Amino acid sequence: MNHLFASRIRDTRTSKIRERLEIPPDAGLISFASSLPTGELFPVKDIEEATKEAFVRWQDSALRYSQSEGIAPLREKIARRVNSKLMTTYEKNNICVTTGSQQGFDIIGKLFINEGDVALYEPPMQLSFLMAFANYGVKFVEISSDDNGMIIEDLEAALRLEKQVKLVYICPDYMRPSGKAWSMERRRAFFETVSDFDVMVVEDVTFSDFRFEGEALPAVASFDKKGQFILAGSFSRIFCPGVRLGWLCVNDKLMEHIRKIKRSCDLNSSSLDQHVLNCYLEKFNIEDHIRKLIEFYRERRDLLDSSMQENFPKAAVYPKPDGGLYTWVKLEGLNARELLENCIKQNVAFVPGDSFYSRGSGDDIFRLSFTTLPTERIRAGVRRIAKGMSDIGFHPSTRVTINPQAYLELNESDQRKVLLS
Amino acid sequence: MNHLFASRIRDTRTSKIRERLEIPPDAGLISFASSLPTGELFPVKDIEEATKEAFVRWQDSALRYSQSEGIAPLREKIARRVNSKLMTTYEKNNICVTTGSQQGFDIIGKLFINEGDVALYEPPMQLSFLMAFANYGVKFVEISSDDNGMIIEDLEAALRLEKQVKLVYICPDYMRPSGKAWSMERRRAFFETVSDFDVMVVEDVTFSDFRFEGEALPAVASFDKKGQFILAGSFSRIFCPGVRLGWLCVNDKLMEHIRKIKRSCDLNSSSLDQHVLNCYLEKFNIEDHIRKLIEFYRERRDLLDSSMQENFPKAAVYPKPDGGLYTWVKLEGLNARELLENCIKQNVAFVPGDSFYSRGSGDDIFRLSFTTLPTERIRAGVRRIAKGMSDIGFHPSTRVTINPQAYLELNESDQRKVLLS
Repeated sequence: MNHLFASRIRDTRTSKIRERLEIPPDAGLISFASSLPTGELFPVKDIEEATKEAFVRWQDSALRYSQSEGIAPLREKIARRVNSKLMTTYEKNNICVTTGSQQGFDIIGKLFINEGDVALYEPPMQLSFLMAFANYGVKFVEISSDDNGMIIEDLEAALRLEKQVKLVYICPDYMRPSGKAWSMERRRAFFETVSDFDVMVVEDVTFSDFRFEGEALPAVASFDKKGQFILAGSFSRIFCPGVRLGWLCVNDKLMEHIRKIKRSCDLNSSSLDQHVLNCYLEKFNIEDHIRKLIEFYRERRDLLDSSMQENFPKAAVYPKPDGGLYTWVKLEGLNARELLENCIKQNVAFVPGDSFYSRGSGDDIFRLSFTTLPTERIRAGVRRIAKGMSDIGFHPSTRVTINPQAYLELNESDQRKVLLS
Repeated sequence: MNHLFASRIRDTRTSKIRERLEIPPDAGLISFASSLPTGELFPVKDIEEATKEAFVRWQDSALRYSQSEGIAPLREKIARRVNSKLMTTYEKNNICVTTGSQQGFDIIGKLFINEGDVALYEPPMQLSFLMAFANYGVKFVEISSDDNGMIIEDLEAALRLEKQVKLVYICPDYMRPSGKAWSMERRRAFFETVSDFDVMVVEDVTFSDFRFEGEALPAVASFDKKGQFILAGSFSRIFCPGVRLGWLCVNDKLMEHIRKIKRSCDLNSSSLDQHVLNCYLEKFNIEDHIRKLIEFYRERRDLLDSSMQENFPKAAVYPKPDGGLYTWVKLEGLNARELLENCIKQNVAFVPGDSFYSRGSGDDIFRLSFTTLPTERIRAGVRRIAKGMSDIGFHPSTRVTINPQAYLELNESDQRKVLLS
């Protein structure tokens, strides 16, 4: 029956690797692919508590349909939190609660994308955005970037040259191989440029909460006065993904249409989920919880970094990220898919870079998530990848050099460890 | 920014009335529009119980992402239940859990509908289906029907004449002004006919559980061996709508694609919701709960019927439905929208028939739900509608005739009531 499918669907790329990597890792496989928050970091007891409270306080209301855009007290809390973190000025009527940020992207795609319309983006792109948009027959066009963010001249050229540009997708906080956030200047420059064009901007702030270094910067959307920007976020990583909630922030005029599309998607997101999250946000301090997560993740990021220094070829480049959930590894001449095939035999996995680029680039990079694995498995996993690299000709030509002064300052047991490592 | 919308979106009809009727009725308004299950009929205590159990048994697993098509134990239970009710032979791998049946329809539209593709249907159509499909630019074509179901000759003619027919939408159980289910013979004939054509069939079984009279008939999909049918259902009305879960049943080959579309929509439906429903289905007997609902609804259906007999013009026709949640009223020469405008002034509402027809028909009918309102409000509401009818020239030319024998058998107090009614 495939010939009956809508034409936009036939074009969707299938990725066997992507599907394989979505399978929860079994005991043997060490997977750096997934950045799913691990269960032991969910505030399970607090969520259970909040759920009890939801039943006591809301009774059958928690089990009815809700407004399509979500229950008002939750929208109010989301607006307050987004404003305080990202220096925006949304009100509760600018918020649409979604079934994860995935649905947020799907709603935007459905509302704006005709087959053949162009979306500009700075690679690598979040898979969730790519998945949502591919089904509307979008054409992705990559804009290059440097350490400070999207390169404005390239953006402007694409906006002038490409026909049918409908929107620009940006994820200025940490979704980049450098692990850096866009600089303040670049944010301003981006805003000034897109203001001159008749396009929408989708700003994805999924990773903004996970900042390890540097100061918090305003969302680019905070400069927007005319409603050109849509801000998209999620509670999956800062709360838990099984209570499936995300949100979109849009201006008043657009909200009317977003609400209509949302309704056609699922009428409303789970009312029970909304009440559970709402009660949780009232009873507990989610910022405290996020601070705990950040400390966990920082430690894992550092451990991943030092393990790579110990085991990876010197030629490999992997900037320590300032935030987010991933470290990107680049190794000139590498075919990351070949490496992955080899690594899977060693029971270790990651996502090859080309999955995040719309066409043909990203071959020599791959992405490691440091959030999901406990420390001992991070170490073992890195060793397995190094073995995989070695098997396809990328030998650790030199191990990490020992700093003699630092070595002498270690105690005897640690000195032994360094020598045996 | 509306000019940036996808072309299929610009075509969507907006219905102010429909939106107004979605607002939960305030204390003053008696709304027969909504068929939402009322909170007092939810098994709230049992759901609370099941939720506690979900936390105890599943801990953080209940809060993780689930497989896109839903957690296995729930899919297994859905398959078993559908098979036992509708005489199908699905297995758990044929089930995709959706965020309400609304999302099921959205997934089907996304997978199959190009702009301009045709969907055949027997009016009146469920709003949820219409809403989902309108956003993919579908063209709806009505097929006429008689008391036994869709008229096969008309179906066949449309399948031959219309270009680009992608699918046929049917809701054989009770979604019809007659309140009757399709006959067994018509089901067979429908199946034989569509088998010869290269189209999909979506069979909506949302109302099949609410049978007041007659015997249970197999789903038309139960005859299907080649995977031409998609069966769609929901737990919103038999459990509760705030735990937002529905399902699609499809054959193995199609499932692969349904899963992919589902993933692009929201990755998965709320895991918490899925675990709560799964635990509920293990701990409690949902069939007992549904039997209770049926008795409630049957009583309300009967009361609505007798109230209309007492108050409506004799010319009004309103067959007592064999199942489902609605009674349809037809009154020749009526403009149901005019009546609605008048009725809203009297603080009573319903849905005018043309909302359920894709173009231009259904003017002289309207739909009354009998599930949501308590008995005294059903009585008062019918009186208000009768007043509205009278205001626009449809007088109750004769009140209901009293059967003298029955009158004499009443006790004195009931005789008074009859005289005063």
